[in-house]
Amino acid sequence: MPMTMDKLFLDTLKDVYYAERQVLKALTKQARAAQHPELKQAFTLHKEQTQGQVERLQQVFEILGKRAQGVTCEAMNGILEEASELIEEEPEPGPVRDAGLLAAAQCVEHYEIARYGTLIAWAKAAGKQDVVGLLDQNLAEEKQTDELLSRLAEAVLNPEAAADA
Amino acid sequence: MPMTMDKLFLDTLKDVYYAERQVLKALTKQARAAQHPELKQAFTLHKEQTQGQVERLQQVFEILGKRAQGVTCEAMNGILEEASELIEEEPEPGPVRDAGLLAAAQCVEHYEIARYGTLIAWAKAAGKQDVVGLLDQNLAEEKQTDELLSRLAEAVLNPEAAADA
Repeated sequence: MPMTMDKLFLDTLKDVYYAERQVLKALTKQARAAQHPELKQAFTLHKEQTQGQVERLQQVFEILGKRAQGVTCEAMNGILEEASELIEEEPEPGPVRDAGLLAAAQCVEHYEIARYGTLIAWAKAAGKQDVVGLLDQNLAEEKQTDELLSRLAEAVLNPEAAADA
Repeated sequence: MPMTMDKLFLDTLKDVYYAERQVLKALTKQARAAQHPELKQAFTLHKEQTQGQVERLQQVFEILGKRAQGVTCEAMNGILEEASELIEEEPEPGPVRDAGLLAAAQCVEHYEIARYGTLIAWAKAAGKQDVVGLLDQNLAEEKQTDELLSRLAEAVLNPEAAADA
């Protein structure tokens, strides 16, 4: 049976649902691994946001009449694995590890930005207006987090890491 | 020995270098798998661009006095694996597979946007002005490709896939 857009949409939703729940776990570890108080705070804040995003995705499943269910997202596993490797390679907290953790977090955000952008475009094309608003809220939060991380890197963390080098 | 920003920069450069070369191989496969002529053309064009990006990265290594060398990027491997799985799951070319291939390509672009953004910010903070221009060119091309893909999805592919459903 050929794949339908509905099936592709649902598969991608499951991919993002899995990804967000992996991020939720990873953020606890990353907040602990971060040294700079502003980076710690950014991770803690984003963890709370991610919890809300997971709940919005559960609402999307509910609207579609489907059970909220994740499928392994190899992309997010790979992104998070790179962050874990960094913590292993640099066991000491400090500006360099913070710079690497922040960079890994921006890869997470960009994966999600791409995925929500796609889901929103597909939902609009299919007339699934009732789920667009929920997905739009998640996308807006990911973009805000990415911008916040960029500002934190440029204004605070990178100058400190460069001075430390 | 604690990790330095120079080491972190070089490791991330190697990560992107590996990623771009994997993308180069994948784009040949994706251009073949795409059905819509505009998507095929977008993949073929981006393949040529990616070849130029790989060469710019080789110049960055040269400026830094290092050998151009990749290290396995689990994130990109994961992203590309998802695209391969889609082709396996939907062996027939058509609008649904095209929509999935385009979505996967946007994940590739966003990973690269995140990575080049980071490398540029680190290069600026460390006063490596001589590599910023090369990385900026790659970043600009990735952003253009992402926008081109979004326009193609919204104006052409998604309406056709939705009509087909």
